[in-house]
Amino acid sequence: MFKILKQDLQTKARLGLCTTRKGSFKTPSFFPVATQGTVKGISSRELNEIGVDGLLTNAYHLYLRPGVEVVKSAGGLHKFMNFDKTIITDSGGYQIFSLKNLRKISDKGVNFQSHIDGARIFLTPNDVIEIQLGLGSDIVVPLDECVSYPCTHQEAKEASIRTIKWARQSKKYFQDTSDDSVLFMGILQGSTHLDLRKYCLDELFGLGIDGLCIGGLSIGEPQDLRYNVLSFFHDEPNSSCFRYFMGCGKPEEIIEAVSYGIDLFDCVVPTRYARTGTAFTNLGEIIVRNAPYINDKTPLDVECECYTCSNFSRAYLRHLINVKEMLGVQLLSYHNIHWYKNFLDRIRAAIAEDKFFDFKKDFLSKYGSKN
Amino acid sequence: MFKILKQDLQTKARLGLCTTRKGSFKTPSFFPVATQGTVKGISSRELNEIGVDGLLTNAYHLYLRPGVEVVKSAGGLHKFMNFDKTIITDSGGYQIFSLKNLRKISDKGVNFQSHIDGARIFLTPNDVIEIQLGLGSDIVVPLDECVSYPCTHQEAKEASIRTIKWARQSKKYFQDTSDDSVLFMGILQGSTHLDLRKYCLDELFGLGIDGLCIGGLSIGEPQDLRYNVLSFFHDEPNSSCFRYFMGCGKPEEIIEAVSYGIDLFDCVVPTRYARTGTAFTNLGEIIVRNAPYINDKTPLDVECECYTCSNFSRAYLRHLINVKEMLGVQLLSYHNIHWYKNFLDRIRAAIAEDKFFDFKKDFLSKYGSKN
Repeated sequence: MFKILKQDLQTKARLGLCTTRKGSFKTPSFFPVATQGTVKGISSRELNEIGVDGLLTNAYHLYLRPGVEVVKSAGGLHKFMNFDKTIITDSGGYQIFSLKNLRKISDKGVNFQSHIDGARIFLTPNDVIEIQLGLGSDIVVPLDECVSYPCTHQEAKEASIRTIKWARQSKKYFQDTSDDSVLFMGILQGSTHLDLRKYCLDELFGLGIDGLCIGGLSIGEPQDLRYNVLSFFHDEPNSSCFRYFMGCGKPEEIIEAVSYGIDLFDCVVPTRYARTGTAFTNLGEIIVRNAPYINDKTPLDVECECYTCSNFSRAYLRHLINVKEMLGVQLLSYHNIHWYKNFLDRIRAAIAEDKFFDFKKDFLSKYGSKN
Repeated sequence: MFKILKQDLQTKARLGLCTTRKGSFKTPSFFPVATQGTVKGISSRELNEIGVDGLLTNAYHLYLRPGVEVVKSAGGLHKFMNFDKTIITDSGGYQIFSLKNLRKISDKGVNFQSHIDGARIFLTPNDVIEIQLGLGSDIVVPLDECVSYPCTHQEAKEASIRTIKWARQSKKYFQDTSDDSVLFMGILQGSTHLDLRKYCLDELFGLGIDGLCIGGLSIGEPQDLRYNVLSFFHDEPNSSCFRYFMGCGKPEEIIEAVSYGIDLFDCVVPTRYARTGTAFTNLGEIIVRNAPYINDKTPLDVECECYTCSNFSRAYLRHLINVKEMLGVQLLSYHNIHWYKNFLDRIRAAIAEDKFFDFKKDFLSKYGSKN
């Protein structure tokens, strides 16, 4: 499933090739989020035009609406969404555990209340794999127990043990019910406690996984603790394992995590920021709905060649966002997704040319400077 | 500006060619509405892909936001919006008169309160032409006084007299300030009173106009009264004048109005209906968000070849609308605008082939039948 093509010498960054039944893509890569079966505001032909490698969709949301049977009857998620590249389904663990007062947890699974209609639902780890396979996912992720930050060692330990227990059960169920073409990821919990991270890692590798999802980070922990977690596992014997940092992140976080050897990212930031009128540029974020852009005839990012930047000024985009026209969000979302894609392209090119360390330094010195 | 290419023999329908400084288009045609400088949910390249002939934008809205100076500084509406075909600006009369309690009217102009921030604004007929020329419109429409339906003969008469007075003043101001490339339309009021319609018509033709906007209809009047108005002016000596039925309409209204010799239409219906999950098909409107479509793998309209119908099922579109994903509105808007474009194409083809009468009969017998 994953092959390291080149290891950077100055950092832990690496160039890789990830292969799923939908084809191969170079890493590090970034998957836009299509929570409910669509990247908000972007059609599938636009995703292909931009050249995204794949998407993350959410099993929990799609299970509630439209329901697994609807997607299955449509021929699976790819046909339903008209998207033919790699689709990962998130187990929904994070969403379920965000429900806080609405859920009850036991070793058997989670009992929770739907955020849509309040219906009580009980899902076992097996159910969660069955849902993802039913949706037609290319890469499935077992149910895990997320803890919030901060959390005590004892809490994190209990959650880690349960996560591993569920991973074991999920893997068995997966082997019994899935064909070979689908990939099975392990999900790493343990909060910021390195001994628990180590425990999870050893257990998951023992189990046999196609890749490692790093969960329980990017949830408000201080940066030094985050990088503590990321820095410890590249010395593991299984350093060649595919590493996917779930929910990360902003450009400066991504480039940092790449230098710790992360291969895949997903994040709602490009589309979520677009909805509030924020665009990513090589000089940092700009809030284009603000007054200074009222007569600005330049594109969002002068270095960008996307459809939005080739055809529309900041002044026009500001106007659209300002008068709440959805085209404004569409055009900003398109640019932001394109900008992220291009950002990862440049990261890979830098690694390939042995220039990643300098590229990172240069990028960070410009990013956030005055626009 | 306008040439009749062919007169239908069985009805008053006609095939024409309308030429503006942005090129020529065949009539009858339909212009989507871009009130605030965008067709809601549709990018300009999508409009070109669909092949729309032009757009109607609204001077009142653009005057308030982003303001004429912003659009002027951007190089005019076409550059601002990145749309290079014909743009008509609506005078805003209809919008201002919709404000009811917020406006005061005199022969000099209208005093009204902005619906955005409540600011008091006074606009003269000259201001309204100046705004449209400043925006860079290809076809301008003078300020008019709209009356609601029903309205007494006396009210309609006063409004008609004022509308004509303003048209005269606007035409003079237009001649003094505009270059030859911009077209000037007259706007016909008079409610459902034929003597007043006749009065306005004679006055406008006396004034010299490039085309006739039919105002004050499509505002709730009974169909027979509407067609009374439409039927009387094709016997006028100026029957070769370009006729634009503002704000009309739904497919069955358009095809009827074509048979009365209307050349151009605009309406918010295709995009407004899309936002509520309604799609146009050759068999009538379908409300795709409804339960019967949950597993419907067919496209919105099996006879449609648009991007939406070529790639997405009713089941997927229903899901998107249902979970309030903007892509649902985008894909439905695209289809609806495409469907309208195709509908007018078919109407023109029928006239060209001397089959319009039968086409209309056939269309109406199918439209609204069970989907």
